[in-house]
Amino acid sequence: MKFAFATTCLGLVSTVTGLILTYHQTDAHLHDKTLCEGKLDPSIVKEIRSYQADVDKIINHILTTEKGETWRQLAAFVDKHGPRFTGTTDLENAIDDRVKYFTDVVQLGPSQVHTEYVEVPRWNRGETEAVLLNAWEGGRNKTLGLLSLGYSVGTPSANGLTAEAIVVRSFDEMHAKPDSEIQGKIVVYNQPYVNYETTVKYRLMGASQAASKGAIAAIVRSVTGHSLYTPHTGMMTYDSKFPKIPGVCITAEEADLMWRKQQRGEKLRVFLRSTAHLDEKTVTSRNTIADLRGTEKPNEFVVISGHIDSWDVGQGAMDDGGGAAITWRTLQVLRTLGLAPRRTIRSVLFTAEEVGILGGEAYFAKHKKSAADVQYIMESDYGTFTPLGLTTAVKNDQARCVLQEALSMLKSINATALLISNSGPDIKQWFDIGVPGGSLYNNNPRYFDYHHTNADTPLLMLPDDMDRATAVWASMSYVLAQISVRMDHDAPSDPVQ
Amino acid sequence: MKFAFATTCLGLVSTVTGLILTYHQTDAHLHDKTLCEGKLDPSIVKEIRSYQADVDKIINHILTTEKGETWRQLAAFVDKHGPRFTGTTDLENAIDDRVKYFTDVVQLGPSQVHTEYVEVPRWNRGETEAVLLNAWEGGRNKTLGLLSLGYSVGTPSANGLTAEAIVVRSFDEMHAKPDSEIQGKIVVYNQPYVNYETTVKYRLMGASQAASKGAIAAIVRSVTGHSLYTPHTGMMTYDSKFPKIPGVCITAEEADLMWRKQQRGEKLRVFLRSTAHLDEKTVTSRNTIADLRGTEKPNEFVVISGHIDSWDVGQGAMDDGGGAAITWRTLQVLRTLGLAPRRTIRSVLFTAEEVGILGGEAYFAKHKKSAADVQYIMESDYGTFTPLGLTTAVKNDQARCVLQEALSMLKSINATALLISNSGPDIKQWFDIGVPGGSLYNNNPRYFDYHHTNADTPLLMLPDDMDRATAVWASMSYVLAQISVRMDHDAPSDPVQ
Repeated sequence: MKFAFATTCLGLVSTVTGLILTYHQTDAHLHDKTLCEGKLDPSIVKEIRSYQADVDKIINHILTTEKGETWRQLAAFVDKHGPRFTGTTDLENAIDDRVKYFTDVVQLGPSQVHTEYVEVPRWNRGETEAVLLNAWEGGRNKTLGLLSLGYSVGTPSANGLTAEAIVVRSFDEMHAKPDSEIQGKIVVYNQPYVNYETTVKYRLMGASQAASKGAIAAIVRSVTGHSLYTPHTGMMTYDSKFPKIPGVCITAEEADLMWRKQQRGEKLRVFLRSTAHLDEKTVTSRNTIADLRGTEKPNEFVVISGHIDSWDVGQGAMDDGGGAAITWRTLQVLRTLGLAPRRTIRSVLFTAEEVGILGGEAYFAKHKKSAADVQYIMESDYGTFTPLGLTTAVKNDQARCVLQEALSMLKSINATALLISNSGPDIKQWFDIGVPGGSLYNNNPRYFDYHHTNADTPLLMLPDDMDRATAVWASMSYVLAQISVRMDHDAPSDPVQ
Repeated sequence: MKFAFATTCLGLVSTVTGLILTYHQTDAHLHDKTLCEGKLDPSIVKEIRSYQADVDKIINHILTTEKGETWRQLAAFVDKHGPRFTGTTDLENAIDDRVKYFTDVVQLGPSQVHTEYVEVPRWNRGETEAVLLNAWEGGRNKTLGLLSLGYSVGTPSANGLTAEAIVVRSFDEMHAKPDSEIQGKIVVYNQPYVNYETTVKYRLMGASQAASKGAIAAIVRSVTGHSLYTPHTGMMTYDSKFPKIPGVCITAEEADLMWRKQQRGEKLRVFLRSTAHLDEKTVTSRNTIADLRGTEKPNEFVVISGHIDSWDVGQGAMDDGGGAAITWRTLQVLRTLGLAPRRTIRSVLFTAEEVGILGGEAYFAKHKKSAADVQYIMESDYGTFTPLGLTTAVKNDQARCVLQEALSMLKSINATALLISNSGPDIKQWFDIGVPGGSLYNNNPRYFDYHHTNADTPLLMLPDDMDRATAVWASMSYVLAQISVRMDHDAPSDPVQ
């Protein structure tokens, strides 16, 4: 998962205008069930409840007959392909693999599986190193644990630079200093971790903010509340008003070390070398789209989605292998069980989410004209830990109450909660024009421990959790595609031009 | 903290004959307070309770007047000296620093501060790298996160070696295979983490066990229940019956990756290069001893201790900077408050614990003849997280009941528990000859997350916890040094020769 920024195209030099909030930190709240009393026609309630047998069949199949299969498929996929970074053939190979899966394993016909082109950047991590000079008694240096930030430029010379470092705990603290105190130095942000939404601003804008004061590089404490000497990467952006200077994240441990030293009056000197760079040319990637065609209304859609790309560290098992896996598995499970709903269930594996939600933007641009035909759009990009239900951004009561009634059928797996939340990086634009949609709601407080790190591997994913998440995904997409009524759309808050 | 092995001298080629258990995993149990009913003379109980005012003075001073001071001193110390590895001048500089602290800050006279020589090895980590070849689709390699193990030899060539790797989950699984399946290969242990005591055997003996089957190197999953792509180091031992082959720990994430690949029938090939080596010559280090001389019985001792050396990664803030800090701080606090007990309180900062408990062994060898004069011996090497009280290895009721009564004065900081446990790496030999002693009892389930890693820094230590731990240490050592009665010793289970 990445934040969204509201620019078009590649957004390489854009400033951040809008952050997607995770549902932990917003004004998210559980839907009040009493609000639905008398809101739905009794015949709709009766109809929804008539699908309990199908839902039970889906749950039983996933949790018993094919127990652990989603985790096994995810692990096999990420263990084969490794990280799937935007602009690499590795990502394209992984996309080809999933096209093959939908045709060969799910056995969808050629007209039901296609890809759609998306122009994407190729940012190269290159080599990066940073050293705190004279860190210990006797003049010993300390190499810092770090990762360059996506879209960062490298140091002007491939031989690196050495400069005094100045540590601050906030933008306010830095801006309160005269420029002369920052000029020519490396700014180190040792910002406290509040939550992702709040703290990620240092990663996103730290370099340009430091450059606005004359700094020559920015080093940011990794955006996490829990570190075991774990550097995190992620995207940064440049404000075109200021010079582009390198941006890297170091471990929380070493940002705090430098801060403590400075507090004691020690002068800090840092060597930084980075060959990170962005290729001039873009390359072509693809969104992967597979349809389980509806029996009665093939041109109406329930869209389920996750993103297939990942950062270039770790294996992208959590972010967003898990979301992709429950999405591709949903089609397989429904096909295996012979459950063919009235509307089409469309699986979208978005590309290039991590580098600016490019796949999500391209899909929206191409398909927004058919927004009226989208019954519901769902995305999973906040982890596939123990599922609790769904989140939804929809505002009208009819849609909320249909969702609530549908979720009540997931009692056996304790996933009946409906959280009102505007979350969903790749699909947020659909919410803005009133299309009902939302995310998987799961118990994921550890999400940002692993986010964008080498620790994002299948080891952290639990097979039982993934089975339950798949059950939520398959059951709810099936029921919403099957019900006879259309879910009400909201009035568009940001109308399509 | 390190395991103990029951060899003398440097123990470089010894097999492991005894592991120190942490108090989480043993038959440790809370002392039953009812067992003390009527066991202590009422006059002793009355006397102990008369020290409540002194104890409150100590607690108030540490938690209020000098709030956060133990953490500040620890951070300043480890931020100045960094890792303090046995055999380095860095450790000796840190020892000089503490000698100066005891004389200049605590203001103990020259006759109250001294060091005692200990011959120690110099093991060199050198450079180490390991690569899983052809890890990902398209033939991409994956560099593994790792740390060499203490005492490991390097690869026969500094250019490294490349061999097939075979993953096992247990010694039993490996030994059940014919030698021909292991011969010439690299054994990778992907053992599940049960607890430190159980699982550390793979780190300790994995190389020699693999060598016994003809393997040419051993790669061990780091000994931890929680990884954020965090390699752990620690000591290993060689069994002289088998060839010495390199031993390294990799991250849990990558041990599991290799296991999953092998489970799917993939052949694994690994490149391993290590220049780790042990110097032929030993060097001299020192135990640091500072006495707050007793007013009435200067030749009777309450010994408090921690170890000053650390691994050569991270900063050794938890293991065992915390134990050392509460020990040095105890003397400072009592001096500042003018609290001079009847017996001597001796602070011992052991050297070379991590590489075989060498400082603890040297101290025991030198001082065991005065065992009868030791009133109580305490060590802190299991963390200085929220203190709960003390552990004790003593068996007799009188000593246990004196401890229980003394601990009851710590009610205001919720640290009144007495845990019966045989734990204490550097002081266990004293228990074996019946000297009453034990460890700080603290709430430390996260201890082995940080143990022997780059994440062992002041960031994980909480000032409030350290204040409370200091209060336990200072209060209990003061009371035990002050009480008029001698604590009963147990009959020696392992009599001194």
